[in-house]
Amino acid sequence: MSVVTQLAENDVFRAYTTYAAIVLLKMIVMSPITAYYRMTRKAFANPEDAAMRGGDIKKYLRTDQDVERVRRCHLNDLENIVPFIGLGLVYALSNPDLHVALLHFRIFAGSRVLHTISYLVPLPQPSRALTFSAGLLVNVSMAYATLRSVCYL
Amino acid sequence: MSVVTQLAENDVFRAYTTYAAIVLLKMIVMSPITAYYRMTRKAFANPEDAAMRGGDIKKYLRTDQDVERVRRCHLNDLENIVPFIGLGLVYALSNPDLHVALLHFRIFAGSRVLHTISYLVPLPQPSRALTFSAGLLVNVSMAYATLRSVCYL
Amino acid sequence: MSVVTQLAENDVFRAYTTYAAIVLLKMIVMSPITAYYRMTRKAFANPEDAAMRGGDIKKYLRTDQDVERVRRCHLNDLENIVPFIGLGLVYALSNPDLHVALLHFRIFAGSRVLHTISYLVPLPQPSRALTFSAGLLVNVSMAYATLRSVCYL
Repeated sequence: MSVVTQLAENDVFRAYTTYAAIVLLKMIVMSPITAYYRMTRKAFANPEDAAMRGGDIKKYLRTDQDVERVRRCHLNDLENIVPFIGLGLVYALSNPDLHVALLHFRIFAGSRVLHTISYLVPLPQPSRALTFSAGLLVNVSMAYATLRSVCYL
Repeated sequence: MSVVTQLAENDVFRAYTTYAAIVLLKMIVMSPITAYYRMTRKAFANPEDAAMRGGDIKKYLRTDQDVERVRRCHLNDLENIVPFIGLGLVYALSNPDLHVALLHFRIFAGSRVLHTISYLVPLPQPSRALTFSAGLLVNVSMAYATLRSVCYL
Repeated sequence: MSVVTQLAENDVFRAYTTYAAIVLLKMIVMSPITAYYRMTRKAFANPEDAAMRGGDIKKYLRTDQDVERVRRCHLNDLENIVPFIGLGLVYALSNPDLHVALLHFRIFAGSRVLHTISYLVPLPQPSRALTFSAGLLVNVSMAYATLRSVCYL
């Protein structure tokens, strides 16, 4: 049986695949949201972008609080989803229990969706701090579980 | 036959490996380009970097439009190449058709190279918007194809 | 023998797993460090964060040199650890010699830990430049080795 067929029948790897695709899609969506805010707030970073709107270019070359908020949210996604993709992969391949793995993946995906909502609405703290921490703890827990079962320095 | 040998004979995985290495190398190159601009524009972020040039440190602790442009291009790479590495991996392991997979990988690699050129020259819009969108659509298409063939919530 | 069992017995992949978990854990730690600096320096990016401290919100909505330093260090991690995770994976699966692979992984992990120390203390240049370059060269070397053994355009 080929490796691709085997991975397609490994429930933990299928779960990893599903949740990795979901959180990466969520992250990708931040790009069009940033573009939307830049256009509605008329705040651009590049002269060639401001030029598309016509009129006074210099007036549109500015930072806007709403645009910067979306960008910080996007960067926070990067800082947390990158570890999830890397740690989730090596964790999924370290033969964990399916239910424990699913718990990790579900909490992480949920925490990142709620984090984005908390950041963009914005909801009062500690909404964002709590959703952020939940995702962080999932990453740390997967790293710990992986290093416990596979350690080769 | 070992898993490593099998993956070495799986054309889709070999294609993923090749294009992943290419786009990551392209992204890595942004670091020396940033350093080059910081030195020629004499615009540093850290006092210890400005100190290497000698003279008045405070004068060199400034932001420069060209340096910020390279940094935005680098961040845009991160925001798009990270999903490609993650989605491309799970997509390549979901047993897609070789020619369809190659089409995805080639369009993505081409779009990111052209995006960097559009950003750094800079070419007038919509050059950058189009090259950016092509890469984004490849990522969304790989996510859709992966979730269709492998879905385990 | 299942693919997961095989990977668990492949020393190169186990080494990749171990070092990937270590460098990602190191990167994750940057988030609490940023939060710590934001609180001790009383410099927040969002009004809802400053509101948690009470008092004059506007006074705390500012950038601080120490906070920005941690953030640059975190971003530099992202820019270099992302290629390591991607290139390290395809490199580990391209059947390299165990000792050569370990050399790559160890130099990279060491260089990133020393880079963080050089950045946050901060140590005088060229400490940071050298540790940064060591990590970059490991990434380029893994990309070269991978493309040499697996190339499918």
